[in-house]
Amino acid sequence: MRYLITFAYDGSKYHGYQKQIHDNSIQEELETALTTINGGQSVSINASGRTDAGVHANNQCAHFDLDISISTEQLKKALNSLISGNIYVKSVVEVSKDFHARFDVKQKEYIYKINLGEYNPIEKDYVYQYNKSLDVNSMKSAIKLFEGIHNFKSFTKANVETYDFVRTIYFTDITVKDNIMFITFIGTGFMRYMVRNMVGFLIEIGEGKRNILDVNSVLLEEDRTKAGKTAPAEGLYLNKVIY
Amino acid sequence: MRYLITFAYDGSKYHGYQKQIHDNSIQEELETALTTINGGQSVSINASGRTDAGVHANNQCAHFDLDISISTEQLKKALNSLISGNIYVKSVVEVSKDFHARFDVKQKEYIYKINLGEYNPIEKDYVYQYNKSLDVNSMKSAIKLFEGIHNFKSFTKANVETYDFVRTIYFTDITVKDNIMFITFIGTGFMRYMVRNMVGFLIEIGEGKRNILDVNSVLLEEDRTKAGKTAPAEGLYLNKVIY
Repeated sequence: MRYLITFAYDGSKYHGYQKQIHDNSIQEELETALTTINGGQSVSINASGRTDAGVHANNQCAHFDLDISISTEQLKKALNSLISGNIYVKSVVEVSKDFHARFDVKQKEYIYKINLGEYNPIEKDYVYQYNKSLDVNSMKSAIKLFEGIHNFKSFTKANVETYDFVRTIYFTDITVKDNIMFITFIGTGFMRYMVRNMVGFLIEIGEGKRNILDVNSVLLEEDRTKAGKTAPAEGLYLNKVIY
Repeated sequence: MRYLITFAYDGSKYHGYQKQIHDNSIQEELETALTTINGGQSVSINASGRTDAGVHANNQCAHFDLDISISTEQLKKALNSLISGNIYVKSVVEVSKDFHARFDVKQKEYIYKINLGEYNPIEKDYVYQYNKSLDVNSMKSAIKLFEGIHNFKSFTKANVETYDFVRTIYFTDITVKDNIMFITFIGTGFMRYMVRNMVGFLIEIGEGKRNILDVNSVLLEEDRTKAGKTAPAEGLYLNKVIY
């Protein structure tokens, strides 16, 4: 039976989503628990995509196959009892054998959080602390220019082995509530560092270091060196995966 | 010169406020930084009181004396640059030589946070996760019975070397917002585990295991074994110290 799970995690407690030698990962913790549930037969999970070290998820998704028969409710309970409190499986559903958590993704939603207020130690790993003032209206105008179909090479990790840099962004939004800025992107998919690079660019616009229309010109350059800094991992949340 | 600082900390990163051998503490981290600022001459700080391992502070206060001359603004900057991001000094003021951060406390405010909604991994160390339903109205009625002058021996750590268990609670409140219950106590002072024991008792009332009026009868018993469980540390915040 193939299962699809939706889960949240505290990215600050891991070296990233993907399994790697010597470092703990979210994938490894889930696979270890699932192997136990599967009677010791090893289980591999396929997520909608990886997240980098320090990046959080409110709703990440992954599929896997089990040899044993177990109800979705029992599976949810068993999984949550075997993993640490740094990950939480929110739902488990059965899916067909041809479902794939990565290839079947229709849209993804990312949210980036910036604290514009006083530094709070308990939020250290969960929000980007920004102490200078930002022109929110410029940022709100600029983010709209990312919407649509674009080549995002300027906003992707340099030297990635990708040939297709074209992605579609359907929706963007910036709101500020209680001194926290929430920057939302919904799109077909996001390449490595893409959201953090767009956020870094928007911050430079908010600082007045760049103009709103620079979004258009830098997209057209298709050159990573033309864009701004990468915003830090702690503010980023994979918020939703839509199939 | 004597200084009074107000600071916030993430209690989950320490073994408690007070200095102890082999374990990191908030006091030690601040004293190490202050000793550096004081040109290597050791500095001892006196807080309004200690907090236990895992308990957070939004606004803890402490005083100390420095041999050197430094402005309050410079001192705030220097301190925050020398301590980790798990503590943040929010303000520094000069006080008279007879001011004492512990003996001059007039009131303290504690807030206890309970998450009644879905478990969230990134809130693991910052809120008490409670998965059963609670009768909030009973709890709201019961908490009012803690107000006033009472002997709180039933709600204090057993076997403490204290002879005076009488304290005054001026104000209490319970509000629920977005599935988070906030329980507030303002009083002259709180003994060890006192807030967490009162919260544990209120939860048992919310669960229907005890009656509202049990607050009165258990206060009168003056016997720790008659009260309920101690609520866990992660939900507790020292929110304010009033001089």
